[in-house]
Amino acid sequence: MPKIKGNLIIGQSGGATAVINSSLAGAVAEALRHEEVGEIYGMLDGVQGLLQEQLIDLRAQVGTPQKLDELKHTPSAALGMCRYKLNDSERERILAILKKYNIRYFLYAGGNDSADTCHRLDLMSREAGYELHAIGIPKTIDNDLPQMDHCPGYGSIARFLAIATQDSGIDSQAAHLVHPIKLIEVMGRNAGWVAASAVLGKRREEDAPHLIYTPERRLDPARFLQDVQEVYKKYGYCVAVIGETVRGPDGKTLGTQAEPYLVDSFGHKYYHGPAHYLMGLIIKELGITARYDKPGTIQRMSMLCASPVDLDEAWEAGAVAARRAIGGETGLMVTLLRGQDENGGYKCEYGVTALENIANTEHKMPVSYINAAGNFVTQDFIDYALPLIGGPIPAYLKLDRAALVKTSL
Amino acid sequence: MPKIKGNLIIGQSGGATAVINSSLAGAVAEALRHEEVGEIYGMLDGVQGLLQEQLIDLRAQVGTPQKLDELKHTPSAALGMCRYKLNDSERERILAILKKYNIRYFLYAGGNDSADTCHRLDLMSREAGYELHAIGIPKTIDNDLPQMDHCPGYGSIARFLAIATQDSGIDSQAAHLVHPIKLIEVMGRNAGWVAASAVLGKRREEDAPHLIYTPERRLDPARFLQDVQEVYKKYGYCVAVIGETVRGPDGKTLGTQAEPYLVDSFGHKYYHGPAHYLMGLIIKELGITARYDKPGTIQRMSMLCASPVDLDEAWEAGAVAARRAIGGETGLMVTLLRGQDENGGYKCEYGVTALENIANTEHKMPVSYINAAGNFVTQDFIDYALPLIGGPIPAYLKLDRAALVKTSL
Repeated sequence: MPKIKGNLIIGQSGGATAVINSSLAGAVAEALRHEEVGEIYGMLDGVQGLLQEQLIDLRAQVGTPQKLDELKHTPSAALGMCRYKLNDSERERILAILKKYNIRYFLYAGGNDSADTCHRLDLMSREAGYELHAIGIPKTIDNDLPQMDHCPGYGSIARFLAIATQDSGIDSQAAHLVHPIKLIEVMGRNAGWVAASAVLGKRREEDAPHLIYTPERRLDPARFLQDVQEVYKKYGYCVAVIGETVRGPDGKTLGTQAEPYLVDSFGHKYYHGPAHYLMGLIIKELGITARYDKPGTIQRMSMLCASPVDLDEAWEAGAVAARRAIGGETGLMVTLLRGQDENGGYKCEYGVTALENIANTEHKMPVSYINAAGNFVTQDFIDYALPLIGGPIPAYLKLDRAALVKTSL
Repeated sequence: MPKIKGNLIIGQSGGATAVINSSLAGAVAEALRHEEVGEIYGMLDGVQGLLQEQLIDLRAQVGTPQKLDELKHTPSAALGMCRYKLNDSERERILAILKKYNIRYFLYAGGNDSADTCHRLDLMSREAGYELHAIGIPKTIDNDLPQMDHCPGYGSIARFLAIATQDSGIDSQAAHLVHPIKLIEVMGRNAGWVAASAVLGKRREEDAPHLIYTPERRLDPARFLQDVQEVYKKYGYCVAVIGETVRGPDGKTLGTQAEPYLVDSFGHKYYHGPAHYLMGLIIKELGITARYDKPGTIQRMSMLCASPVDLDEAWEAGAVAARRAIGGETGLMVTLLRGQDENGGYKCEYGVTALENIANTEHKMPVSYINAAGNFVTQDFIDYALPLIGGPIPAYLKLDRAALVKTSL
């Protein structure tokens, strides 16, 4: 019977997703299976809470299969999150806390900033000669972490946007006499993975979305107006999806060319996004009624729209991290890689990479996923992304508007 | 065996909902049962399409139980909609079309503008001595039609917002160190039914939403800031729901006091809504980070969030309309009334009222549904609305943040 080697702690960091609690549940489930793990702590609000000794007992709170399943199906970060950069002056403080609670396994779910935090903690403890096994669990809806095929959280925002764009499409077609142009501004930091995912509910050429603009390509407003008008002429309506950081010809995010609508007391400037700017252009230049939707935070943490594939993979990513840490490894982040099942279909495999390979690096969409005109995605992208949302979304009935009744009366 | 008396036509009008196709399906299903009904036509884009003889054959396109069930579960208006006021000069044209297609049953799903259209058509045909049975099917997410307990479409937007607000709440609590204040601006024309529905996922006092502002009460910005700060001090975060037409002390919609951000070529002015204005106030006056979400059209036609009760009632409202028309009645709109089942629980009963009682009248929230401070709803409202969304929404797991680990080391 192995001796208890120490306690395990887990934290969540950065913008929450629909499945980050599934990673938490997977890690706890795995930790429960290892006798060398004593307490299983959750840190509230990431390392910022850890610095204040805000620890809760996860073994007591979610240590049963039923509670873990409930946790898996709870969106957003149950432990709370932070955006906090550990600095060297906090080194002694944090090491003292790790020692005080006899923490030997440190798991941290987040994106590249969180990988940086986990990496620093690993270095600090090595330098101090304190044995700590620190492993990162990938998490970001942006899908922009390097060294991996895709990131937990992405499949679920992709499924949300596939459904929301399909819904917006049939609504815009129904309202073509009143509101024919709909823009949808979506998240995605500096990469277009999220915007691109709006295509995943499209079945016919005339279906929404008709246009997709990702931050990888600059958007020329004159060309954009041409694109919209062409689609509108062809189908009588148009749905265009715009990444929230799409840049204009000057390289700046569209919308920031105007004056900020607000400047706060710290001097931070608040600007409208690209969709607001482009909607104004359509109304003024084309004289067509246009609207935009900006789904907001709901897009990244809707449990109703969560991808079942993403939910399961996030769990497994958490479990792998716990297993690796308990097995004695450190300084790594779990990676999700694309394998093949026995029928040549999609299968996720799990690996690791050094945390320093993740921190402060962004993985953008490859050229082959964006069409030549820069206003849509390619079939290669669809083939890549469709398995991540758990296959096609439910289809709706579509009436044949062209089959008009002829009467000889 | 009854002789075929004529053909039936059905149209959809005004902003689409998640369940307006369920009414269409219910009406078609009922019409299929009556041998006196010949053709079953759908008019594309409401009366605007009818004026252009844009008719499709619904018996051919959805005349099977399976197709009708698919139609029931398709959100938005499958036939297309319009916002078009019939004028007297079109009287001859529209009567000629009704005669040409031998239309004797006219069903029209919509809100009060659509009731007005249906009413005009009824009068026109009476005056011309043309036998037409025109019945309205109620439809509006705004829930503001008079003469009825509630409207088809409301239960589904209410369920969407109950879920979205619960999701936003746990997300805002998780992000309390970074983004503690969240405003959600929702639809609802001049009544607060939609804003109020955000409460329906709330279980504990500390859960979101903490504040709800409806258009029935004017919002005093200074008082609003006090409200937000009190909640923030108490819980460390705050989620406030704002109706899109909430008015300030001057009686004008909040946001329209500023300059319009856009004026189109017709001179229409575009203003930011109340949430945009109030977010700015919080940032400037309280110095706290605030954000707002405006779910947009997705809130009113999400099938994933549709209320099963609403879906079934919308079907039945369509069926009742068809039955009444075929039975020889005209000039009426179907109403949804609150009855009781044998156990004293919720039950919907169906009645009718004259179309002229519906047209151009709005039913606002009663005083007893809004608290004295005007910043939340009452238990009476919750008791009224909860059955309409099909009962409580799924609960999430919540970790106990207060149960901090104490260590004696």
